[in-house]
Formats: sequence, C-alpha cells, structure tokens
Amino acid sequence: MINKLAIFGVGLIGGSLALALKRAGYCDLIVGCDPDVDRLRRAVELNVIDQFSTSPAEAVADADMVVLAVPMLAMQSVLESISEHLSEGVVLTDVGSCKASVVAAAKRVFDGMPPRFVPAHPIAGREKSGVEASLEDLFVAHKVILTPDSGTDQAAIATVTRMWEATGAQVKTLGIEQHDLVLAATSHLPHVLAYSLVDTIAETDYVEQIFQFAAGGFRDFSRIASSDPVMWRDICLENKDAILDVLHKFQANLKDLESAIMQGGADDLMETFVNAKTIRDANVMKHRVETE
Amino acid sequence: MINKLAIFGVGLIGGSLALALKRAGYCDLIVGCDPDVDRLRRAVELNVIDQFSTSPAEAVADADMVVLAVPMLAMQSVLESISEHLSEGVVLTDVGSCKASVVAAAKRVFDGMPPRFVPAHPIAGREKSGVEASLEDLFVAHKVILTPDSGTDQAAIATVTRMWEATGAQVKTLGIEQHDLVLAATSHLPHVLAYSLVDTIAETDYVEQIFQFAAGGFRDFSRIASSDPVMWRDICLENKDAILDVLHKFQANLKDLESAIMQGGADDLMETFVNAKTIRDANVMKHRVETE
Repeated sequence: MINKLAIFGVGLIGGSLALALKRAGYCDLIVGCDPDVDRLRRAVELNVIDQFSTSPAEAVADADMVVLAVPMLAMQSVLESISEHLSEGVVLTDVGSCKASVVAAAKRVFDGMPPRFVPAHPIAGREKSGVEASLEDLFVAHKVILTPDSGTDQAAIATVTRMWEATGAQVKTLGIEQHDLVLAATSHLPHVLAYSLVDTIAETDYVEQIFQFAAGGFRDFSRIASSDPVMWRDICLENKDAILDVLHKFQANLKDLESAIMQGGADDLMETFVNAKTIRDANVMKHRVETE
Repeated sequence: MINKLAIFGVGLIGGSLALALKRAGYCDLIVGCDPDVDRLRRAVELNVIDQFSTSPAEAVADADMVVLAVPMLAMQSVLESISEHLSEGVVLTDVGSCKASVVAAAKRVFDGMPPRFVPAHPIAGREKSGVEASLEDLFVAHKVILTPDSGTDQAAIATVTRMWEATGAQVKTLGIEQHDLVLAATSHLPHVLAYSLVDTIAETDYVEQIFQFAAGGFRDFSRIASSDPVMWRDICLENKDAILDVLHKFQANLKDLESAIMQGGADDLMETFVNAKTIRDANVMKHRVETE
C-alpha cells in the first residue's frame, strides 16, 4: 500500500498507472505534477488523479512513492526540482524507455545513484498519447522491467515490484545495458522504421492511394508512426548508441536483400525469409502470452 | 452466379475465395487444381472445394470462371497448361500481388492479352498460409483491385466484379503500373522490412530476450515476417522495379534519420516524426474502414 503517490508527468503512462492503482485500491492519495496545468485539471476531472500541484516541492511533500513519467529529456530537471524536498524513506522510480540515461541523470543530480531509486520500464503503450488516452488495464499481463544495480535497496525494489504487480503487470529484472540493447531492437528501431516508412510514402506522388489501398500489414506496420513525436525524439537522443548499433546491423541486412532483389537472387531471398519466419514462429510459440 | 468455377492453387486465398462463394451460394460447382494432391484432398475434406483434378485440362472443361491463385512465378506455366482447353466465353482472372508480371505472362502465352482475362488483386491475407488457414470472411470489407486495360471485355469485368462482391469485398480499379507502385509501398516493402528486421535480430546475441520482452509495436511490426516465404520471394522477383524504387527512397530517408540520431539533431528528428504522424493520422481518419 502507498499512502501518498506523486506522479510527475500525467500523460498516457502516468495516467494509466494512477488509474490502475486506484482500481486496485493501492493508494490513499495520488497527486499529479506537470508543467501543463490544463492537463492536470483534466486529469482531476477524469478522476485519474486525486489532486494536483504545480509545485514539485509540494507534490513530493510526505510522499512515500514518487514516479517520474515525463519524456526522457525532462527527467533530469524534474529530479533537480525535487531533490531537496524528498521525504526520508521515499522510494523513487521512473517509467523511462531508456535506462542508462535516467541513471546518469540521477547520478548527476544526487551525486551518485540514490539507493532507493529503482529504475523501471513498463513495456506497454498505445499510439495515442495524453491523459485522455489513459487506460486502467494498460499494464495487465504486460511486463515491467526493473534495472536495479548492486547498490539498489532491496526493500525499495520490493516496494516498486508490489506497486507494478498491483496494476496486473509481471515484473522482471534486466541489466541496464542489456535493457537498452534489447529495447533498441524491439521497440526503438521499429518506431524509427515506421516513422521513416510513412515519411517516405508522404513524399511519393501516390500517398492518397497508398492509404486508400493499405493492407493489414501496412496498417500494423505504420500504427506506431502515430506515437508521440516528443517521446520518440527523446528516446532517439537518449539511447543513441544502442539504437545506432542495431540500426547499422539492420541497414546491412537490408542492403543484402536489396542486392538479392536487384540480381534476382531467388535463393538468397528464400534463405532470409525462411530464417526470419522460422525464428519468429518459434519464439511466438515460446512466448505466447506476450506476443499473441 | 457461376456454374463451374476452376481454382488453380488451393491455398489461403484460393481456399478463402472458394469458402466465401460457397457461403454466398454463388457457385454450383467448385473444382480445385493444384500440383499438391494431398492439399487437394484436404481441401475436399475441409469442404473448401467440391471436387479436385490434377489435370488442368479437366479442371477447366466447361468452367465459366477460372481463377489463378498460385504463386507469381507459377502463373505462366498454369496459363500454358490451360490455354488450349478453355471453354468459349470463359472468364479468366487471378489474385496475384503484382499485375504487370501476370499480364506479361498472359501476353506471352496467348500472344496478346485475352479480352476476357481480368487481372485482379484482393487486398487481404494472413500471416498463416495454406488451405487450412482459409476463412470464409477473409474478404469482407476488404478491397479487391482490378487492373483491366482498354482492351478488356466489359462483361468480363462485370462478372469478376460480381464474384468478388459476393464475397463481401469492395471492388476498385487501378492502372497496372499504379497498382504495382502502390502495392510496392504499402505491402511489398513492409514485408521486406519485417523479414529483414527479424533476420537482423536473429543474428544478435540477445534474440531470446528480444522476443521475451517484445512490446506490441514489435509484435505488429514482425507479424508479417511469418508470411509464406515462397509467395514473397516471387513478389520480390516479379515486382522488382517498383520495390527497388520505393526501397531506395526508404533507405535515403532512413539514412537521414541515422544522421540525425548520430548528430543529436533533435529538430530533424521532430520534423520527420511529426510529419509521419500527421500524414498517418489524417489518412487513418479519411480511410477509416480500411485501416481501423
């Protein structure tokens, strides 16, 4: 149970976390803090949060749990605004899509990683953003990855784990670097490709027909190109090395496919397509909960 | 109404067309022809077709409609096998994903495009393939694109239109070249990218974690990498020029995004992401039936 939860950033993820914890009866009081006052008012009207404050110091006063749900590039300034005002024993966590950069920001602000800061990343989202898109069941059966290190307080890890389990999520642990590499491949690169594909199509002479005759494959493929541009800009800047690493591997692979298409290399095309299908089919079977 | 329908290739599309026409009571007799006798037997057992024949001449005897639903590279040999045996007044059509190459194959076999051959392409599919994956409602509310030219018989166009409308599909018309360009962008390139992404990931050290922690974006993005490799190999070979054209545009766009990520170009990233989101959101609103 949490007495007072302060959520910084009441958008899709912060709002959905608040709704899920309310439904679970897991918090006495949820206070939202956001630079956008209109958004905070809407969040109260929608019964997503109980109260709001535009003062970070006021928002964290007496809070036993503080969650940062702001875009990646805003993490450090929020940490700076609260660092002098946290209650003793408060547990800090975040929902950022890249973990190395949040940890680096926290180390800069606190002059070392606070033991009761547990970096976290819920693997859930929608292409819609904003508090109005919040869903109380957004995290049900989804994974939340914690990336504590050897200095993280065990009780704080347990507290953050219980909070996420109260939303219906499954909590897992990964190393910081491993998290950023895995998410670069499964989430960050696919978003970059989807944005790039739609932007490419926007510049053709037949953009109207493309959407008119779009098949299911394109619909699924392009869905994530409707995601929040600020969030994804920040992720590209903050997880740059891991994204570039997998992007370069992808470009090389695509170059090989391009050559095969140019040269009519039927066997090379078959080899790649069969390999991809085999890997995907095998892993979809193995991890059915997450992918079906 | 069709008296006798001959379907060459009883896989996902041929099988689903047969099921849909049976449900609509639109055919007296559906005969399947396929090089795979086991598949034909299963198709009869599953009540997808009424009869089968391994003889193309027998299959098309007295047929008033012949549908080619074989992989792109098999179109010409099937046309050769039936060209001497077609009934007078028969209407020919196909379900191929690339239209220029089917038309070229027909011109080679018949020494010119037969007026009663109406090239067609149903924009529907699943990542599962084979007759067992057939669905009687696969085409409901989906578009079917016809690509007749000035020499195509109007009555034949009307006959093929009515057949597809009986399955619940909406029939539209495009030029052959325009069809191949639009489909290269909406369908063929996304499949190439999905296969390439999954093949890239398969070669990393953390393929297991990637599927374990895959988010919805990756699930949607990679779904089409489970599609039939033979079908997609043939499409890459048969619609080569249009695919390479849009692939090169995509590679250039991605290269720009890569540079922006490398250089921390926040404004360039925002511009691309906002542009893509704006285009997609606007077109999803406009073409709601097809994309939601």
